Amino acid sequence: MNFERHFADALDRLKAEGDYRIFADLERHRGAFPRATDHGTGRDVTVWCSNDYLGMGQHPAVLAAMHDAIDRVGAGAGGTRNISGTTHAHVALEAELADLHGKEAALLFTSGYVSNWAALGTLAARIPGCVVLSDAKNHASMIEGIRHSRAQKVIWAHNDLADLEAKLAALPADAPKLIAFESVYSMDGDIAPIEGICDLAERYGALTYLDEVHAVGLYGPRGGGVAEARGLMNRIDVIEGTLGKAFGVMGGYIAASAALCDFVRSFASGFIFTTALPPAVAAGACASVRHLKTSGAERAAHKARVAEVRARLDAAGIPHVPNPSHIIPVMVGDTVKCRYISDVLMREYGIYIQPINYPTVPKGTERLRITPSPVHAPGDVDRLVGALSELWTQCQLARRPMAAQ
Amino acid sequence: MNFERHFADALDRLKAEGDYRIFADLERHRGAFPRATDHGTGRDVTVWCSNDYLGMGQHPAVLAAMHDAIDRVGAGAGGTRNISGTTHAHVALEAELADLHGKEAALLFTSGYVSNWAALGTLAARIPGCVVLSDAKNHASMIEGIRHSRAQKVIWAHNDLADLEAKLAALPADAPKLIAFESVYSMDGDIAPIEGICDLAERYGALTYLDEVHAVGLYGPRGGGVAEARGLMNRIDVIEGTLGKAFGVMGGYIAASAALCDFVRSFASGFIFTTALPPAVAAGACASVRHLKTSGAERAAHKARVAEVRARLDAAGIPHVPNPSHIIPVMVGDTVKCRYISDVLMREYGIYIQPINYPTVPKGTERLRITPSPVHAPGDVDRLVGALSELWTQCQLARRPMAAQ
Ligand SMILES: Cc1ncc(COP(=O)(O)O)c(C=O)c1O
Ligand SMILES: Cc1ncc(COP(=O)(O)O)c(C=O)c1O
Repeated sequence: MNFERHFADALDRLKAEGDYRIFADLERHRGAFPRATDHGTGRDVTVWCSNDYLGMGQHPAVLAAMHDAIDRVGAGAGGTRNISGTTHAHVALEAELADLHGKEAALLFTSGYVSNWAALGTLAARIPGCVVLSDAKNHASMIEGIRHSRAQKVIWAHNDLADLEAKLAALPADAPKLIAFESVYSMDGDIAPIEGICDLAERYGALTYLDEVHAVGLYGPRGGGVAEARGLMNRIDVIEGTLGKAFGVMGGYIAASAALCDFVRSFASGFIFTTALPPAVAAGACASVRHLKTSGAERAAHKARVAEVRARLDAAGIPHVPNPSHIIPVMVGDTVKCRYISDVLMREYGIYIQPINYPTVPKGTERLRITPSPVHAPGDVDRLVGALSELWTQCQLARRPMAAQ
Repeated sequence: MNFERHFADALDRLKAEGDYRIFADLERHRGAFPRATDHGTGRDVTVWCSNDYLGMGQHPAVLAAMHDAIDRVGAGAGGTRNISGTTHAHVALEAELADLHGKEAALLFTSGYVSNWAALGTLAARIPGCVVLSDAKNHASMIEGIRHSRAQKVIWAHNDLADLEAKLAALPADAPKLIAFESVYSMDGDIAPIEGICDLAERYGALTYLDEVHAVGLYGPRGGGVAEARGLMNRIDVIEGTLGKAFGVMGGYIAASAALCDFVRSFASGFIFTTALPPAVAAGACASVRHLKTSGAERAAHKARVAEVRARLDAAGIPHVPNPSHIIPVMVGDTVKCRYISDVLMREYGIYIQPINYPTVPKGTERLRITPSPVHAPGDVDRLVGALSELWTQCQLARRPMAAQ
């Protein structure tokens, strides 16, 4: 077999379909977010698609904690969590996260992806006969974890309580069940009916596993996520989150009962066999979580900026998918057009919005995903809406009154 | 089902078998490695089990690069590699790694674990009919990646060329084959017959995938690993490594042909759907790789220290498994005894060596795994060998003359 040919052919097919990905080569400017230099064009750009939703990646408390940790304890952890890699920064962060979610314990992973993959993979594999009920739009990391467990999987229609109930009712009453879902779905910005899911879980004796990756830091009085905002944290068995989006650093975690965390800690390959996060990363994330527990200013500014961008897009007739969250999807529905708009925005307007294409979203739903943040100034919003408006005319894309009919 | 009871029972079984893990809660002291504070006992300890093999975790060039990156670009990357998370630090590091291994390209992952899991999972799944020939002692991350691919797997006896050849010969000539193995095996310290494996791969038309996680930075004139030291890098298709051990920071990668890296980049879920490494982590790792390309001093000191510890253990009659690498396994062969020795070392001697138990090593092969480093001073070696000698007497463990017979 000619391996090189096989790889090249597969890449050619991606290119022919317009799905080949080109990464922007960026350098953000600390203290001047959302400004960055694009090394591709050499010009300064305004980033409108970051998941550093609150700009915590440049918050002085976060940076100070990282600098301090590097000075005190050095660069890496130097080992797996079991073999010399558990540092006090990890222990402190786990306590902070358990407290954030009102749980007995929390367990850190190297990323949100690994936390979903390892925790779901371990729970579903090691609860004998476990059936996983997975929302149809769950993130790749959850899907891969469930797949890895080899447990029986039942997919229920996205955010559809009636379908979830039908699927629960169809299973044997004594089969252990685990319902896996997200709060804010990252590409559409819709939010799960968490309370209804908890009610069903209670009725059918199922464990609940909630991915709050796009909600922690952003929702709830202390940034505990949508479950906190709705007073439902105590009804969720496992809350999973990331330290790499609203918290602005990197890492992932679950928060749950002490026994559940200890169980995953003891059996999850993806937790055991890997170098721990650098202490400076844990310390920076810890400072971020702590700050957002008491400060609501970032959340308020975030909410206001999102509302403002939505209103301005509406006024300009740029169609965007309505949803109750902070994510503004502007549908283009064509992979080539979507990349073209993104390229022109970058090259001619100094605005960076990565086109979102397959496999991140289904084909035909290619979009620009706009994530306003407290670091965007009113002038940034003007320029964004002005640029989109010009491009909408130039590309003869549908305006809202037409799109809505 | 009572889930809490299920978790608690499983943990009780681990405790009864002595396999329950207790993590040391440590704080290393930058500038004073291998010194650390153990928050459990509150005392200062000397760490003898770190995988920061060269002490690069406190190297001024690494720390300066991290500080600088935090000051310039902030804490996290703020996105996945595709969606605003590719920063110039990532691009520069990938170029540095490709150069390190003499390959066209390299691809970064959030950890060595994820790089093995994602790269093997993707290659084996997406080369139609691929059969993976996996060394019997491969690391968990490779095993999980292969398992995830659902490709046919053939396990060959550890480091056994005759068995590998028999297994290759038994497969259909036209089946695409991938041989997955490590250079330095981390728990026994033995090294694969890389040249013989390359010869067989060539004869049978197989791809070669080599995990150099415990060798990069440590072997070869520029720290390219055992394959570099033996002049074999160009005969290996995929070299996988970590930035979290000898390089002292965190992250993982593959280095390979441009098409292969681009293929994995385009299709690997574990690469695509996760926040990129913080720029400061990439910058620190890049500084470390760069430094060790030109400086051989750390490698020379490392080698000398390992030889010294081995000689001193021999003189004291403490049995250790001979091997051609830098890892010194002192076999205890009993999980309870192993933990007891480790506890006493920590509590009474201020020496930290984590007991290595199941599932990291097979039951009955529990060991102390000693990793000397250039940061250990002669006095540290005296204290280590003195403490082990006293404990060997106290626990009535076999001395070398007896053990060798
Ligand atoms: C819903 C969801 N879960 C998990 C993850 C993974 O988190 P992380 O980026 O920390 O790996 C992501 C995105 O990356 C996500 O969108
Ligand atoms: C052989 C081997 N491969 C891969 C890994 C994973 O690397 P990382 O610690 O960077 O996840 C490890 C250890 O952790 C290892 O021992």
